[in-house]
Amino acid sequence: MTIELSSPCRGTGVDAAAAAARRVIDGLLRAGDISGADLGGVADRLNAIADELDAAAPDLRERLVDMWHGDGNTRHDAVAGSENPIAPPLEYTALPDGSIEAVTVLGLPYQGPPECVHGGVSALILDHTLGVANGWAGVSGMTAELVLRYHHVTPLFEPLTIRARQVSVDGRKIRTVGSISAGGRECVTAEGLFIAKFQPRPR
Amino acid sequence: MTIELSSPCRGTGVDAAAAAARRVIDGLLRAGDISGADLGGVADRLNAIADELDAAAPDLRERLVDMWHGDGNTRHDAVAGSENPIAPPLEYTALPDGSIEAVTVLGLPYQGPPECVHGGVSALILDHTLGVANGWAGVSGMTAELVLRYHHVTPLFEPLTIRARQVSVDGRKIRTVGSISAGGRECVTAEGLFIAKFQPRPR
Repeated sequence: MTIELSSPCRGTGVDAAAAAARRVIDGLLRAGDISGADLGGVADRLNAIADELDAAAPDLRERLVDMWHGDGNTRHDAVAGSENPIAPPLEYTALPDGSIEAVTVLGLPYQGPPECVHGGVSALILDHTLGVANGWAGVSGMTAELVLRYHHVTPLFEPLTIRARQVSVDGRKIRTVGSISAGGRECVTAEGLFIAKFQPRPR
Repeated sequence: MTIELSSPCRGTGVDAAAAAARRVIDGLLRAGDISGADLGGVADRLNAIADELDAAAPDLRERLVDMWHGDGNTRHDAVAGSENPIAPPLEYTALPDGSIEAVTVLGLPYQGPPECVHGGVSALILDHTLGVANGWAGVSGMTAELVLRYHHVTPLFEPLTIRARQVSVDGRKIRTVGSISAGGRECVTAEGLFIAKFQPRPR
């Protein structure tokens, strides 16, 4: 049996708008200035949407309370957040051995070296995934130290398997490991030290 | 004397569209489902823009050659790239002591803990900034190992100073350090080992 750990995309409201914004981001990267698109017109239309969103947005404090309500998964995260258009799209599954896993394909917005995932994007994904593994294991905290080792380049446009598992809890010290693999080969591995403390949620 | 190291935003074409897309991303995060905005309508309009970009986009191979032309700075990077709406907006300056520096303010798309920068976003920024410092020092390569230490939480909505400098070059091994500071205090520090090798640019 496997268990879904991510907040599913709702397909309506801000989730639908964020999914469409992801398509725009990817489209802009694939278009570039050699595209036949009317990019000045695209800029005008995007600015008009931004103006409307700005005019309709709640007070920042109200929005912070809203986005952190409850105690479970959040939906706005910079990784895997269905409300966040910049987030690499990951859907985590808990496996019977206590680890978690996600499979994804990344495109041009996440590029570092030619046709490869940016090393910093791999770090972003692994920091977040180690945190989700801690949550699944039942004891989580904030990153204190993160060691990343890059063994092979991580390809764009191919399925990547991202895994993590909590290794130990010693008082407030939590140790967690993870990896990004492609084609059965580990491209990046991570070791994290987390401390069991939290920033208070806005209420 | 200081020297600007980043490709400046052109203010036209795909740069202008990417700048507008950044505003939409930030607006969606600030709106959420408690906004008064017509988010279904926003989704429809964004999907229409994405459809047009898809229809006008060049062949992927042609675009890859285009985005990697020349040998200098690229414009599409996942950090500081003026063509990339997900990129944290950084403009690097070279300082007389051989280090580089950027000052930026990050908003909700880059959030991890409440009102703080995501630890993985700090890793993303530092990996990239260490790479830019290597480029400025004249010997660069690909990340082999990156060690991040999180000393204090990194605030959203406040000026962050991001610094890096190359420490040593020993054969193909390059060592580089960096930090993110807020209010004069180091929040995150990084040590990187880079290997002087490259993925070939698409031609």
